[in-house]
Amino acid sequence: MSELALAAFAAETGSHVVRAPRERAFRVFARRFDEAAYLAGLREAGVGWIARSAPEFPPLLHAIHDPPAGLFVRGEAGLDLLRRATVAVVGARSCSSYGAQVARMLGRELAGAGLVVVSGLARGIDGEAHRGVLEAGGATLAVLGCGIDRDYPAAHRELAARIRATGLTVSEYAPGVEPAPWRFPARNRIIAGLSAVAIVVEARDRSGALITADFALEEGREVFAVPGEITSDLSSGTNDLLKLGASPLTASADVLDVFGLVGAEAEPVELGSSAETVLARLRDGPASADELARLTGLDAGTLASALTELELAGCAVAGGGVYRANSIAT
Amino acid sequence: MSELALAAFAAETGSHVVRAPRERAFRVFARRFDEAAYLAGLREAGVGWIARSAPEFPPLLHAIHDPPAGLFVRGEAGLDLLRRATVAVVGARSCSSYGAQVARMLGRELAGAGLVVVSGLARGIDGEAHRGVLEAGGATLAVLGCGIDRDYPAAHRELAARIRATGLTVSEYAPGVEPAPWRFPARNRIIAGLSAVAIVVEARDRSGALITADFALEEGREVFAVPGEITSDLSSGTNDLLKLGASPLTASADVLDVFGLVGAEAEPVELGSSAETVLARLRDGPASADELARLTGLDAGTLASALTELELAGCAVAGGGVYRANSIAT
Repeated sequence: MSELALAAFAAETGSHVVRAPRERAFRVFARRFDEAAYLAGLREAGVGWIARSAPEFPPLLHAIHDPPAGLFVRGEAGLDLLRRATVAVVGARSCSSYGAQVARMLGRELAGAGLVVVSGLARGIDGEAHRGVLEAGGATLAVLGCGIDRDYPAAHRELAARIRATGLTVSEYAPGVEPAPWRFPARNRIIAGLSAVAIVVEARDRSGALITADFALEEGREVFAVPGEITSDLSSGTNDLLKLGASPLTASADVLDVFGLVGAEAEPVELGSSAETVLARLRDGPASADELARLTGLDAGTLASALTELELAGCAVAGGGVYRANSIAT
Repeated sequence: MSELALAAFAAETGSHVVRAPRERAFRVFARRFDEAAYLAGLREAGVGWIARSAPEFPPLLHAIHDPPAGLFVRGEAGLDLLRRATVAVVGARSCSSYGAQVARMLGRELAGAGLVVVSGLARGIDGEAHRGVLEAGGATLAVLGCGIDRDYPAAHRELAARIRATGLTVSEYAPGVEPAPWRFPARNRIIAGLSAVAIVVEARDRSGALITADFALEEGREVFAVPGEITSDLSSGTNDLLKLGASPLTASADVLDVFGLVGAEAEPVELGSSAETVLARLRDGPASADELARLTGLDAGTLASALTELELAGCAVAGGGVYRANSIAT
């Protein structure tokens, strides 16, 4: 009985299967299963298959208590991507501008330091983390909660294609499997399982990202949570993780330290004096353009060009009508 | 030799003295010191004195490794205020609107639950914590880093008078002692020493509030830090405290738990539908009025009155051109 038969049976019956079921239906299915023909079909669709018992199967994922039968993979990266040092960056789908900024910076900086960032292709934090990696010219792993032939959510079809151009999308689900709510926690165990370190950027109470963190803690992986304001519901899950003993992440260097890596030195940026003045205020916390005008005494035109200068230089990020300093550079 | 002579000698010589110095100058001073006359002078100035050896001296402060010779006190509260369960709320002088909001809420809610809040009368977090207590009709303790007859900073003269109307200002420094930078760390040890729990709301790296936290940790007191955005320098000290093992504070209930107290139930607030809509957005994080208009689709007039309604109901706070939900109520 092949592991591929397990995955194909799970797809055909719409069930979640990681070990051979005792039921007669499975024995009948497995006897009739034509592995060579199935593999040829996958190949034709540009889909690879790594059985759990194959030497290419990621060792960290093999170590969890219920590893999938195997992984379907799509993308241009070599399969060795699945064996490199991997960090999960996950969080809320409807994230705040703060969370989006931090997720993208982490994607960029962790990939820049040579780590593989894995996430779930979801809206919000997941997508920002993937995009940050692509900005840094890195390769990223997206783990799907549906069949490997689907790009879910549909709004991330183009992002999935960009991910596959240098990285991989992977799934334990065979082509044809529809996304379903119960598959996402199962998917989250794979994100956690692939990763030596899991980072939760923003999460409400009872968020799916906390499930990923739970899986990671159960498997003895290091879990980081990004602190946020206690007046924001989007940080209540992450701040609660800190209470439970997760490590606070304040810079990507915190994660690089775990792997004995050192980040790239931030290149010194030359800024005009107005931009320097504005940046000094932003370092004290988020502020609206109106407030920055009041605090700095700059006229509207000068302030606008200072803000544009800061954004282009990567020193500030706008979101939610609020500007923030971009100060987690390693 | 009386402890009061130590304090008077320290004032006369501009030094910091907690034990009898071996120098001849002190022996001469102590021999000539007229304690009864000095006490009469204090009484006339409305200043009380609690020697370290007196039964009224706060036991937690007595337990630190270098308790002051005694405390000078001013204010209408009875001296038993110094023996009640005490929490220090400290932080940056140039705090952000986020820090100010949290400090004031903590002052209000901790005092409302019957705890004595102690702080340093400084600008920023200290002042907001004291003001929060006064809003709740509570009594607060302000520890000065100068002579008990001074109100420092001058901008807080009125606040100091309001504190004394129901609470106390205290100092180890006798009347006439000028504020000096080196006295503030010494003052911070008293804030920490008086308190079973110390809370740092906002702090930059190398902030004075971190000195208070260090004293508290050294003396085995519980230290809380309020998480904040990793892109804000004003939260870098507090987030680093979390890394060092301080407990994350996300609600005043976290502190009340330490004392086995339960906070007052928040009274249910009836809000109009526009105010509810705006509050739902604010719960996801800080936003400017412009952004709120965009997100809610409310016209400027409706939005303005919804924001006013939320502020009056205590559900939202404005600061830095940004509105935040007031969601740390216990």
